[in-house]
Amino acid sequence: MNQTITFGEVLMRLSPEGNKKFIQSNTLEFYFGGTEINVGISISNFGGKVKHISCISNDFIGDTAISYLNKFDVNTSSIVRSNRPLGVYFLEVGAVMRPSSISYNRSHSSFSEIQPSMVDWESSLKKASWFHWTGITPALCQGGYETLRDGLILARKKGITITADPTYRSGLWKYGRDAKEVLSELLEYSTIFIGGINEINEVLETTYSYSNDDFIAASKQLMERFPSIEKVFDKIRTSLNSSWHKIRARMWNGKEFRETEDLDITHIVDRIGTGDAFAAGLIYGLQEFDDYKAMQFASAACALKHTYEGDVNFATVKEVMGILEGNTTGRFNR
Amino acid sequence: MNQTITFGEVLMRLSPEGNKKFIQSNTLEFYFGGTEINVGISISNFGGKVKHISCISNDFIGDTAISYLNKFDVNTSSIVRSNRPLGVYFLEVGAVMRPSSISYNRSHSSFSEIQPSMVDWESSLKKASWFHWTGITPALCQGGYETLRDGLILARKKGITITADPTYRSGLWKYGRDAKEVLSELLEYSTIFIGGINEINEVLETTYSYSNDDFIAASKQLMERFPSIEKVFDKIRTSLNSSWHKIRARMWNGKEFRETEDLDITHIVDRIGTGDAFAAGLIYGLQEFDDYKAMQFASAACALKHTYEGDVNFATVKEVMGILEGNTTGRFNR
Amino acid sequence: MNQTITFGEVLMRLSPEGNKKFIQSNTLEFYFGGTEINVGISISNFGGKVKHISCISNDFIGDTAISYLNKFDVNTSSIVRSNRPLGVYFLEVGAVMRPSSISYNRSHSSFSEIQPSMVDWESSLKKASWFHWTGITPALCQGGYETLRDGLILARKKGITITADPTYRSGLWKYGRDAKEVLSELLEYSTIFIGGINEINEVLETTYSYSNDDFIAASKQLMERFPSIEKVFDKIRTSLNSSWHKIRARMWNGKEFRETEDLDITHIVDRIGTGDAFAAGLIYGLQEFDDYKAMQFASAACALKHTYEGDVNFATVKEVMGILEGNTTGRFNR
Amino acid sequence: MNQTITFGEVLMRLSPEGNKKFIQSNTLEFYFGGTEINVGISISNFGGKVKHISCISNDFIGDTAISYLNKFDVNTSSIVRSNRPLGVYFLEVGAVMRPSSISYNRSHSSFSEIQPSMVDWESSLKKASWFHWTGITPALCQGGYETLRDGLILARKKGITITADPTYRSGLWKYGRDAKEVLSELLEYSTIFIGGINEINEVLETTYSYSNDDFIAASKQLMERFPSIEKVFDKIRTSLNSSWHKIRARMWNGKEFRETEDLDITHIVDRIGTGDAFAAGLIYGLQEFDDYKAMQFASAACALKHTYEGDVNFATVKEVMGILEGNTTGRFNR
Amino acid sequence: MNQTITFGEVLMRLSPEGNKKFIQSNTLEFYFGGTEINVGISISNFGGKVKHISCISNDFIGDTAISYLNKFDVNTSSIVRSNRPLGVYFLEVGAVMRPSSISYNRSHSSFSEIQPSMVDWESSLKKASWFHWTGITPALCQGGYETLRDGLILARKKGITITADPTYRSGLWKYGRDAKEVLSELLEYSTIFIGGINEINEVLETTYSYSNDDFIAASKQLMERFPSIEKVFDKIRTSLNSSWHKIRARMWNGKEFRETEDLDITHIVDRIGTGDAFAAGLIYGLQEFDDYKAMQFASAACALKHTYEGDVNFATVKEVMGILEGNTTGRFNR
Amino acid sequence: MNQTITFGEVLMRLSPEGNKKFIQSNTLEFYFGGTEINVGISISNFGGKVKHISCISNDFIGDTAISYLNKFDVNTSSIVRSNRPLGVYFLEVGAVMRPSSISYNRSHSSFSEIQPSMVDWESSLKKASWFHWTGITPALCQGGYETLRDGLILARKKGITITADPTYRSGLWKYGRDAKEVLSELLEYSTIFIGGINEINEVLETTYSYSNDDFIAASKQLMERFPSIEKVFDKIRTSLNSSWHKIRARMWNGKEFRETEDLDITHIVDRIGTGDAFAAGLIYGLQEFDDYKAMQFASAACALKHTYEGDVNFATVKEVMGILEGNTTGRFNR
Repeated sequence: MNQTITFGEVLMRLSPEGNKKFIQSNTLEFYFGGTEINVGISISNFGGKVKHISCISNDFIGDTAISYLNKFDVNTSSIVRSNRPLGVYFLEVGAVMRPSSISYNRSHSSFSEIQPSMVDWESSLKKASWFHWTGITPALCQGGYETLRDGLILARKKGITITADPTYRSGLWKYGRDAKEVLSELLEYSTIFIGGINEINEVLETTYSYSNDDFIAASKQLMERFPSIEKVFDKIRTSLNSSWHKIRARMWNGKEFRETEDLDITHIVDRIGTGDAFAAGLIYGLQEFDDYKAMQFASAACALKHTYEGDVNFATVKEVMGILEGNTTGRFNR
Repeated sequence: MNQTITFGEVLMRLSPEGNKKFIQSNTLEFYFGGTEINVGISISNFGGKVKHISCISNDFIGDTAISYLNKFDVNTSSIVRSNRPLGVYFLEVGAVMRPSSISYNRSHSSFSEIQPSMVDWESSLKKASWFHWTGITPALCQGGYETLRDGLILARKKGITITADPTYRSGLWKYGRDAKEVLSELLEYSTIFIGGINEINEVLETTYSYSNDDFIAASKQLMERFPSIEKVFDKIRTSLNSSWHKIRARMWNGKEFRETEDLDITHIVDRIGTGDAFAAGLIYGLQEFDDYKAMQFASAACALKHTYEGDVNFATVKEVMGILEGNTTGRFNR
Repeated sequence: MNQTITFGEVLMRLSPEGNKKFIQSNTLEFYFGGTEINVGISISNFGGKVKHISCISNDFIGDTAISYLNKFDVNTSSIVRSNRPLGVYFLEVGAVMRPSSISYNRSHSSFSEIQPSMVDWESSLKKASWFHWTGITPALCQGGYETLRDGLILARKKGITITADPTYRSGLWKYGRDAKEVLSELLEYSTIFIGGINEINEVLETTYSYSNDDFIAASKQLMERFPSIEKVFDKIRTSLNSSWHKIRARMWNGKEFRETEDLDITHIVDRIGTGDAFAAGLIYGLQEFDDYKAMQFASAACALKHTYEGDVNFATVKEVMGILEGNTTGRFNR
Repeated sequence: MNQTITFGEVLMRLSPEGNKKFIQSNTLEFYFGGTEINVGISISNFGGKVKHISCISNDFIGDTAISYLNKFDVNTSSIVRSNRPLGVYFLEVGAVMRPSSISYNRSHSSFSEIQPSMVDWESSLKKASWFHWTGITPALCQGGYETLRDGLILARKKGITITADPTYRSGLWKYGRDAKEVLSELLEYSTIFIGGINEINEVLETTYSYSNDDFIAASKQLMERFPSIEKVFDKIRTSLNSSWHKIRARMWNGKEFRETEDLDITHIVDRIGTGDAFAAGLIYGLQEFDDYKAMQFASAACALKHTYEGDVNFATVKEVMGILEGNTTGRFNR
Repeated sequence: MNQTITFGEVLMRLSPEGNKKFIQSNTLEFYFGGTEINVGISISNFGGKVKHISCISNDFIGDTAISYLNKFDVNTSSIVRSNRPLGVYFLEVGAVMRPSSISYNRSHSSFSEIQPSMVDWESSLKKASWFHWTGITPALCQGGYETLRDGLILARKKGITITADPTYRSGLWKYGRDAKEVLSELLEYSTIFIGGINEINEVLETTYSYSNDDFIAASKQLMERFPSIEKVFDKIRTSLNSSWHKIRARMWNGKEFRETEDLDITHIVDRIGTGDAFAAGLIYGLQEFDDYKAMQFASAACALKHTYEGDVNFATVKEVMGILEGNTTGRFNR
Repeated sequence: MNQTITFGEVLMRLSPEGNKKFIQSNTLEFYFGGTEINVGISISNFGGKVKHISCISNDFIGDTAISYLNKFDVNTSSIVRSNRPLGVYFLEVGAVMRPSSISYNRSHSSFSEIQPSMVDWESSLKKASWFHWTGITPALCQGGYETLRDGLILARKKGITITADPTYRSGLWKYGRDAKEVLSELLEYSTIFIGGINEINEVLETTYSYSNDDFIAASKQLMERFPSIEKVFDKIRTSLNSSWHKIRARMWNGKEFRETEDLDITHIVDRIGTGDAFAAGLIYGLQEFDDYKAMQFASAACALKHTYEGDVNFATVKEVMGILEGNTTGRFNR
């Protein structure tokens, strides 16, 4: 595998232990996360080469964040530094009927200073064969959007495969641009669409339902509107409650519709970053397998992520393949 | 909402982390609990005003207990201090087929010194509109019983609503008084009965079964015997094992019988104080909603409590209402 | 009950907290384990007298291991010391679809120095009425095999009951001896066989299936081949995933086949040592009850072990009997 | 004692355990701090009534901060809420030759939104007899300066005693105003000056040395320039290294110069908030004792603060008086 | 060495981590302590045989306490059980100028039920050659005093060496007996007196100063008054503050006065149980060395105890001898 | 700076928290260490490029060790893997008069399998300008010695600067070779000697004292015997006790003798790896400064290391220079 590029904000995650709330805690666990590094680190854990591009605070917190990426062998040589602080998010982990709660401190973070002039895309993409972007980055700030756009334009020109995960989160998008318009522009450079009916409806201004028939129709319409898009992958989560989910996936690759079986995640350890694990599994899988097996690989990777604390998917290729081969009963690895 | 009064012992809770036993631990977590402060703190977390009355040790442990109540904005200005130590309970948390175990050190605690002369009920009840009592307080010591009785008599005279949760625990009641007799006396001042068939049978010396028909009959007989009682609420717990319960509730308010659906608590985090969360939910709900919706609110509050570590129910009104509105699948609050 | 003898390696277990991996941890929990001390400590927790024989490192780690056995009132007076380090195993605890992973550091441990001349079996067995061995000890090293064989020969001569748990783990057996041959020799001294179809097939070189009919046929053939064996007990584990198992047991005692109901372990706390808990329950049970009830006791003990962190089964006789009497719904012990 | 008013930012403090750095940690301890709440909480711990005024984030972090103040019985009823996040500071605790390091994330915090219109000074100061301000608040933002100024003007009009701790930190003051000018304006309303030669030189644009003679001369010149100032108190820290300091104090009250003995703090536990402990001790002391004893009380309070983890001085009046009475050898309190 | 007997209360010690106060903690560390088990465990760690006699709660806390003694190989076979809870003490650890604080919950503990009829001294002392008692036991309750007295009478009759550490703590002695009278009676059976001028003055109603001359005179008068006493050992602590002490010892054995050099304990880890470590060192030393070397051994043992967390002195004979041989500079043991 | 090569064993360090012993702990902290990676990581923290060569276990522990090196940006591309487990050391941290204790489990570790054929020195040294070796590596096993020798021969041929830290630890050297002989051979390739009188006496079979005159004479004799050696640096540690050391250094560079002032480390946080910090400081310093300033830099780096937990020196160039510039009083870095 050649190098995958990810670009986006690195956040510090702070949460009390277990299901505790801040009000009943004196100590916190911290990790670093952010949808794009989650994808990047997971690909690196699959053995892929990954470079992450970001703007990170120029203090000991930023040093720690970069060291965290190095730890997972993600290339940090193109990261720039800023005098603003690193973005932070606070998390209280729910259980059963209690949802998890998140509070962000990111609106004036180091990443919010990112500007196109700060990233030398020509040199950054030199070894790249894949570029993954998400809808979070252009939602954060004008500079994030423009810098990403420049990178995508160059990547497209160089024939790099571009996966788009245009997650639409309405709480963001505060800097004055319209989500639909910006995401549409960025989708024009993208090859593979990872996302569901919500994102398609947002971009196309349609009202498709969650049915498989609608999914196929929506995918077709999406691919008509954005001719560069060749495949659409959708991960479906069924939540019994905060602690118990089921995961399956479906795809339309222009030729066939396929769907995986539900994977039953009876005891969730950590739900954060599971969508990112799906994207990372897909990026790895599409370079190794056919579309359907890639989607199975991504689903299994996503399911495994629910068993790791923190944002990172630690699963190796061997561990994901174990699930594809039917080993889901937890026999020991000695 | 006006002020709710709670009166009873504050206990320090000491337990090893997770499912560990003391014999395998070097460290403990501690909280403060006690059925009445559990109710009081939960009401305060709903936004209600609460004053707790107790007798607490005059050392740094007692200071910490009072500070704990202040933290939750419970009024502590009527608490008296004693040279005896604060009561303690030790807890080993079970799982699946293993029951939790509790060992008490409370028989000579600071609260055991409580005497009617130590509480100035007239001033303590000045702003009160609600008084909640439980069967634990009169079970502990003669002074607890007498002080509570004096408070109830005055509260009744002032037209304050009185909720009774006459939990009958046979391991207590060691100071020489008969539970049935004492509880009966105290029920004569009470307006709302929170408790199940066991408590009714204990007080009425009847043998009603758990069926809905018997519940209605028992409630009617209870309300005949204690004409001040206007409503009876009963929380029903179905335990698959220590880690998995279902909760529902039923009521007889003199006019109609109603029952809620089961709430399925598939992964219990902490089972302590869940009955108290039901009582607190009811006290809040009855001041805001009709009887049935109050009971639904109480059931959802009770279910949510199973997801918080410690004795305290941290749920806010918004969070409880989320469940009533059907959001039980744990979507994130961002 | 008279004294039970166990003989085997004591290992230090090191694992990150909860479901964490080493790569995301700075701190570890440690316990001591090893299949034979797991059995011994559990019997001691049932109130039985137990002596454990081993070879343990002569440093502060070895001192800590011996102190750990003393803590559970296991007699350590026959343990010998070595200048080699204590064996260690590293554990990452899985969840749901993720299996647990173990890495051993035991091949040159203190126990690997054990030699027949180091154990005075005559004095060690003076008060013994029961001897329990497992297939791990003879799999580790020639000295382990020979020392065990000498002990079994003497125990057999003295009429001591001998339970064999010939767990076959192919990753061991590296010192040049054939598992089938060695286990067969040791089974010739044994009275009770604890193990399943896999172990029987390994020793008899047969291909029995897991069906009850095959179990009976296999047991009969085993008892023909090893006339000293009077009873065969088999524990059956059904794994939904790493976090959710069901346990039942079956037996053939030469006269009748019996089978227990499944015990449903919906939220596993720690799966290590659960087979050892079954063996310990059986050894205790066979001295107190008839074969069927002993097997029920062993199953319940095994199920309870899944709720304790670490290798040790802390369950008391009273707690195990609680399950046999139907208390599996986790009511509090106050 | 009547009520003391404090006004300023509440910060969340995040630091690894002990002397660890973030890069080697997975867990953090958190506290709430900020120079003004440090003073307020310490006065409350001395038994004084305190109200703190601030602008705090409207999320679960802000709820936790308010609950933290309630825990110490600080009145929070005048606090306003903002949609911006609470300010945070990250701390790595040094030792011996290694200095502690701090990184702030406060420039766009909830407090940075404070505006004069948000604080109703008339009602906030209703019960106040003392107002304490520091140079941090006007250094943060225009709104902080203006709101503080309005409060001081009203306090002055009402005859409230005003202590000024005009700590000058050049790293702040980024919003475009000149420190000297702003601090001078605010000193015109102040009664008591807590600070050293650095602050006087900054405000008067002088170059006094640290000698006692210069201190007296500087104080005189300060009191000439700001006729409302009646007393000047200066705390002198002698640092052997990060772990070992000595503390003494000196004063000029217009009539006499006094100086305390050095207190030798041989093993610092936590150095943060020790200046605030001095200020709080002074505010308490000046209401109970003569100037010299008040300064002794403040010095002892400051010394004791070095032995508490976190920003808060937990010392009680009895504990501080213990030091004044010569009990510095650490005999047990049983 | 033959068996040493200790008799007294076992307490659970609960303290926040490091120098934290309860009010700022959620977690506690726990140990078991009590002056007599501290002595017993230390002797066991020196390789001596020790039996401890006590009355311990009949719950999982009591089980844990007994298991704690077993862990250190202290014989627990003569311990009786009670339905009252185990005594508890809460500790806040001071530093520098801040004293440590202790709060007890022991007045109605399991040990307070001890009665002479509960201890079979004849069988308990069968293998004993040494009996150590302290002034805490007779200070707690009439039953403690009487049971101890019976044991001492029998021990004296059997010619067992009896060490008395008549620590006088005025906060105890609440059950109606006079300390001087009771201690005097018990000293009549004792052979060796461990204690200082305070204890001698208390018992003899004298006013000796701390000077060496007075120490000799006091010792002589003590030995006149109690002819069974052959030797007096006194440990002298010089406290710079809570974190830095110096320790030396002096003796009068009827023939000569000797004094050791100060040992400089510059960084105290845990001060609890250091006097008990001195007593244990003396008991061990007097059986192995001459009086002076025994006192040196005891002083070094006492100094080492300051470096262990908890009540227990873990020092081995080899480690104590290391200090006597001059290795006080902390070279590594590899 | 060009690349520095380090070669040697990576060990997992396991130790209880603070000053606890294993016997009183349930949890451990872990780090990775080893004298050569300690040097390498410190140089990387100074901003230098470093490659470490080793043989590491092929399991999740080995993965974690490699990830640990990556975290500090040490190049791990030449590391080989083995099926043997990673070496481990257990540490109990002493205090005051108590020495720290270490127990090793390394004799059959992954590194013990190292063979010359496993390291491609030609490619490994491609970018190297410095090679640092210590006396630990050739002391461990024949393969370690031979592989190191091959590397040094090539390095010498390529004109790479070679620092030798021939620490002599008599507890190692168990594989049959003579320390003096082996170290002498390796010194023949070395340029700079880091070590004291002990190492010189061991190699030269001399009996020099610690005096400066003897140090100069010894250095001269060493440089005569090993003409490649150009400079000798010696770090001198004065230990008051385990918690309080002083550090200074001296040098003979063939032309002049220089000596630094003592640095007073009054409160040691972690003493492990302080010698390695000196070596790393020297390697960095000699490339940036003259010999004397390099030695000052190394001393200050060594002193700072005593303030970091774990084996790693986190000090940056800026922090070390701070000490050289006289900032040793622990003023805050804000």
